[in-house]
Formats: sequence, C-alpha cells, structure tokens
Amino acid sequence: MPVVSQRGQDMPVSPFRKLLPYAEAARRQGKTVYPLNIGQPDVLTPPALLEAVRTADVAVLGYAPGAGTESYRRKLEAYYQRAGIPARYDDILVTTAGSEAILFALLTCLNPGDEVIIAEPFYGTYTAFAIAAGVHIVTVTAHIEDGFALPPLADFEAVITPRTRAVLICNPSNPTGYVYTRAELDALLGLCKRHDLYLLSDEAYREYCYDGAQATSALSLEGGEEHVVLLDTISKRYSACGARVGALVTRNPEVWQAAFHFGQMRICPPVLEMIAAEAAADLPSTYFDETRAEYQARRDLTVRRLRAMPGVTCPVPGGAFYVVARLPVDDAETFGQWLLEDFTLNNQTLMLSPANGFYQTPGLGRQEVRLAYVINQTDLAAAFDCLAQALLEYPGRVEPAPAAFVEAAIAS
Amino acid sequence: MPVVSQRGQDMPVSPFRKLLPYAEAARRQGKTVYPLNIGQPDVLTPPALLEAVRTADVAVLGYAPGAGTESYRRKLEAYYQRAGIPARYDDILVTTAGSEAILFALLTCLNPGDEVIIAEPFYGTYTAFAIAAGVHIVTVTAHIEDGFALPPLADFEAVITPRTRAVLICNPSNPTGYVYTRAELDALLGLCKRHDLYLLSDEAYREYCYDGAQATSALSLEGGEEHVVLLDTISKRYSACGARVGALVTRNPEVWQAAFHFGQMRICPPVLEMIAAEAAADLPSTYFDETRAEYQARRDLTVRRLRAMPGVTCPVPGGAFYVVARLPVDDAETFGQWLLEDFTLNNQTLMLSPANGFYQTPGLGRQEVRLAYVINQTDLAAAFDCLAQALLEYPGRVEPAPAAFVEAAIAS
Repeated sequence: MPVVSQRGQDMPVSPFRKLLPYAEAARRQGKTVYPLNIGQPDVLTPPALLEAVRTADVAVLGYAPGAGTESYRRKLEAYYQRAGIPARYDDILVTTAGSEAILFALLTCLNPGDEVIIAEPFYGTYTAFAIAAGVHIVTVTAHIEDGFALPPLADFEAVITPRTRAVLICNPSNPTGYVYTRAELDALLGLCKRHDLYLLSDEAYREYCYDGAQATSALSLEGGEEHVVLLDTISKRYSACGARVGALVTRNPEVWQAAFHFGQMRICPPVLEMIAAEAAADLPSTYFDETRAEYQARRDLTVRRLRAMPGVTCPVPGGAFYVVARLPVDDAETFGQWLLEDFTLNNQTLMLSPANGFYQTPGLGRQEVRLAYVINQTDLAAAFDCLAQALLEYPGRVEPAPAAFVEAAIAS
Repeated sequence: MPVVSQRGQDMPVSPFRKLLPYAEAARRQGKTVYPLNIGQPDVLTPPALLEAVRTADVAVLGYAPGAGTESYRRKLEAYYQRAGIPARYDDILVTTAGSEAILFALLTCLNPGDEVIIAEPFYGTYTAFAIAAGVHIVTVTAHIEDGFALPPLADFEAVITPRTRAVLICNPSNPTGYVYTRAELDALLGLCKRHDLYLLSDEAYREYCYDGAQATSALSLEGGEEHVVLLDTISKRYSACGARVGALVTRNPEVWQAAFHFGQMRICPPVLEMIAAEAAADLPSTYFDETRAEYQARRDLTVRRLRAMPGVTCPVPGGAFYVVARLPVDDAETFGQWLLEDFTLNNQTLMLSPANGFYQTPGLGRQEVRLAYVINQTDLAAAFDCLAQALLEYPGRVEPAPAAFVEAAIAS
C-alpha cells in the first residue's frame, strides 16, 4: 500500500477545531455550547453582498481572469485608496480567500527549506501553510505581560540565518488582538531592509481597531515598496467568511508577477463571490463604524468579565475580535475538553481554543486560551457565566503563580 | 532587494493564455477572434444552479465544514452512485475546483522531489501544480498516429525510479480527447499495484463521451481502493467554470484524512458556489444527453473540417471537448501568433493553443495545436473557414512529411 507523504502526515489538526468532536458530543446531549473557539462572527453579512449575487446577469458562469475581474480590482483599488493604502490596480491580485494569499506569498517569496520569522502566539494555520510550502517557521516570543507587543528587534536579529527570507505578521493580530504601532512597523521594515527580507503582512482585521485607534498598513510604510506583501481577505471585514475572496497586494512587480503565475495555475477565484465582494467594496464607511461599535462593546464585555475572574490574566486587545487570556488551570486543552464533557451551568457550556495551538515552542501557552468574541452580547455574557463558574469547579485549577515564576518554569 | 523564489521564477505562463496579448491586440483593431484556445464553453449554465443561489436563505455567509457541506457531500454521493462510481460520503472531500484537488493530491501523495508519471501531451497546468508541490513530472509519450492511446506499459516501467510515487491520468483526456478503455485502466492499476504507486485520475469530462461510449472511472476499478484518487470538478460538467467547486475522492482513508488536513488549512470551499453545485447534482440525466449531443455535433464538425484541410492530421477524439491536430506549419506557436497579428478572413481570425505547452519533452508538439470546440457551430464553422484559408496563406507552411519521418526527426 502506498504511504501518505511526510508533509501529509505532518499536517496539524486545525487548533480551532481540535475540541470539535467533544463539542459535537455535548450538543448531541442537548447542551448549549457557545462557540468562542473560531472567528466566525454572528454579525449579519451586509444584504448588499447577497443582493448583488441575486441580481447578477449571469448566463454562462465562466472563468474570470486569473488576477480577478477588472471591475473588482478597480473597486479594491478605490477601497485601498480610501483606507490610505497606496495600492494600485496593477498591485492587486485577487485570491481565493486570505488562505490562498498566504500560500501564494510563501511559495513566491521562499524556496523550500527557507525560513520565515513569526512572533508567537500566531494564527495556528500558518503552520499548515508552511508545511504545504515546505518552509520553516522560526519564532520569537511575544509575552502576555507586555500585551503581546512586538518582541524586541534583537530577538528577531538573533534568529536570522542565511535561510531567512521573510517576516510574517498579522496586524491587528489573530490571536492576540494586538495592534502594531507605526513605530514598531517601521522598525520591522528597517530590519527587513537591512537583511533583505520580505515583510508579509496579514491585515484581515484592518477595520476593527478600538478606542479610536487605527491600524497602520505595512503597505503604507515609507520605503517598503520592494519588501511588503499585503495579505488580505473580505472574510472578517464584511462577516462573509464563506465567500472565499481575498487579495495579495504588493508594489513589487516581480513578486506580483510570480504570484500571478501561481494564480494562473488555479485559473481564477470564485466568480459569484467576487460579485459579492465587489458590492462590499461599495459599502459606506458607516458600515464599519456600526460594526466596530458592536465589536468594541463585545470586547469591553469580554475584558471586564475575564478580569473579574480570580486568577485570570487578560490584556486589553486593541483590535480584531480575539483575546488570549491566561487561566488558573493546569492545562488549557484539558480544561477545554472538561468544559465540553464534564461541565454545565444551566445546561450550557462553552468551547474555546487552547492557546498551545498558537505557539510553536513546546510548553508555551499551556495555561492560555484564545477566545473569539464573535457572538452577541447576551450569549457572550452567558458564556462568561459558564467560564467563571467552571474555573471555580475545575479539578485542575491551580492558583496562579507570579508571572516571572511562570516564565522561568516554561523556560526550564 | 529580496529575490523571488526559484519556484516562483519557474512557474510557467499558462499555455492557453500564451497568445492572449496578441488576441487582445487583434480585438482592439476590431477583428473578431474565435477563442478555440481555452476550455470555456459557451453552453448556458443550467438556470437551476443560479436559481439555487438566488433563493438561498443566507443571513450570515459563514464558513462551511472543511470537507464541504454535509448536504452537498450527500448529493455528490448520490451522483457518484448513479454514475456507477462506488464513492461514499466519507470518501468525498469537496475542494475549491479541480485545481485544488490536483494540488492536494500531489501534496498528500508525494514528498518534495518525488516523481509522478504522466503521458504527454497532458493538461499543461499540471506543470504548474508540480512546481508548486515541489515534485517532478516524468513523461511517457502518446502519439497522434495512435490517436493518443495509452502508451505501452513498458514505457511506464522504463521510467519508474525509487522516487516514483504516482501515475496521473486525465480521462477523458484534456488535451487529446482520448478515452481510456477499461483494459488500459486495469493494466495501469496493475502497474500501480506492482510498484506501490497512487493512480491519480482527473475525470473532469466524465459525461462527455461520444458515439455511445462511456468513460470508466478509475475509482470503479476492482482492487483500486488503496491506490486510486479521483480528481473531479463541476466546471465542465455543468458549464460552470467560474464556480470553483471540485472534489477529491478516495476510498483510502489515510489519503482522505491527510487531504482533509490540507483542506482545513484553507478552512472551506466557496459557500455560495457549493449551493449552486448542490442544485447541479439534482439535474436529470437528460441534461447530459442534450449537452452531450451538442458537443458531439461540434466534435463531428471539427473533425470533418480539419480532415478536409490538406496536410492536417486529426484523430477522432472520443470525449472531452478538445482535439490535438497536427498542422502543416513550421511552428504552431509562430503560426498562432501570425493568425492573430497578420491574418484575417472577413476581419475574422481564431486563437488556438500551441501544443508545445502540453508536452514536457522539448521539441515535441511543434506542429500540433489544441483546439477546444466550445463555441457554437456557426462560430466554429467560421473559425474553421479562417483556419483553412490561413493554412493556405501562411508563409511558414510546410508540406507534411510521412508520419514515420516526423517521428524520426523529433527523436533525433
């Protein structure tokens, strides 16, 4: 019998779905399970997106150009200009969701065996893309005590090798919600320029920054033309995760051209969903104002409730719709499974993502979880009622050690 | 400045689109250019597909399961059962078009540096997928004089090395239209079993076989459970190329599981287009009867017209909607460019795909072209009027040598 490839065997189970079988079992038992594990918002998709598809005049649902339809690329150009991002029509390659933009960027910028530096905790699925592209992720570690700010540049310098080709960031960050400052981004670009590295910037959550903050796009940095590759998607921006439309945007024409050849390989992005995306690009900025206000209220609720739970460490996420919190538990994955198998409050419980799936360094994140505040405030409050009670009842509860002690223990 | 990866530099220009800039220039000059270069049928997409999307009750366009929606996988199971293909629900992984099924199959079945054997001429885009997956295509050559039948097994045996992991076929074939017999497929599976290879079978054109013939699915072969991976798509089946929905189907659960992990990486296939695909799976078999009759008429017209042109060699394609013909020209790519730049008949011309893009062995296919009979019969006839006249006028016309001489010249 032929054997599955090593990379096939190495592919990780999605960290957001690790506990799914237990959640399904709990639901079969009639429990309500609040899904805080995955970034699937309950926010309505703007009706204009679906209306555009409904009224589209399509007789033959034929191929589109490999870089996306001209009309959608024009709309995207206008969208980027409004967002203060100097991306032009020719810089934009429409992709099948942000996923494909990530894959194409790794294939285009790195050779097999090359290295990309990422600050952990990071979007766990990057690991899968790295395996698919045959490249290695090298990590520097961001710390919960610093609110997961950019680690010192010296930490990046320390792990650069002759195989390093890129730094990959997610800004605002999934999973931490941290929003990089312009100063941090400038410093990072400086590092990339000194070492001839690409700066790959996943900006899926651009519009969702709170307390009046604004995300800085890496593509808007001075002097980044040759280095920056923007990875984008409409999934979160318009609560349209099922519409698989994203973009790879770069002002480096050689990178664009090579990525475009990978795009020709799969012929074109989904055509009906590009029609939806095109309608989305016309939405007024009030759409973002309203949606941001809702997410901010959810974030405020999340932080307030978590901080009220004894032993929980919770930074204030500045953007996206996630928080990585440290819980007073022996092991967050065991706790997550226990929540689904052994706990209920009024026949309700919650599903979370153990944060170990967001770290590459073994042992890190063992007490941390990622929570996605993507459900309405009533359900969110109920989920936190469950979590608060569960933390009191959980047999593996540990009293939190001082932060310095925890770090030392992990390092040992 | 950072340098694009070697694989990015190696990615080929799509062979169907090589002449596109010349076609665009010709159209700007007001010429009518009949597109026989790409498999984009003008057949209407069945209205039921689009109607299903229009009437779908979607409030939040959320993620679907990574393997596709349960309802669509159930419909696909029923479709395969009706087609006599023993694929069950658990064997089916819905992919983002056939493209993704090809990529996932290569990633799952081969390690970087491994080899896959393909009979040339083959769907040129396989080259791009092989580069993306870091694997090598090794060819055996099918010949126009044999109607592009399966080359002798001894030719396959001769190129097997310790790195060979799979044989990839396209049946019915793009670009040749050849339909493999059950005996050929059984022999090929036997070879795969003896050498512990996967048999990857791209069956995008299953329904379109002519003269009453039926395509045999590799998945229906006796004893193929562990070896066969079916690569499928709705693009051609329902003239829905822009709906990026395909499938990877295998009865080998380890292959399925690994491919599924690659599927989790990109979270899910396009959701609106899965709704269309689900409606398509309910179409009655009369849909295929009618569409097949139309393609058969186009094929008959194509073969009749090509064979009437002095010096043209044209096998009778048994399926799909392509033919590879040999023309009495010095170089088919030069001729294709000349057609667009220097020729018109009543201000009309045609675009074709030079067949060198479908061969890996340098020099092969230099006088051959792939023609896609995907446009209506009136236009098709007009395109062949152009081709007939062009072959008479073309300055690089060569009188055809006897086949044996041509083969010897190519081999030298």
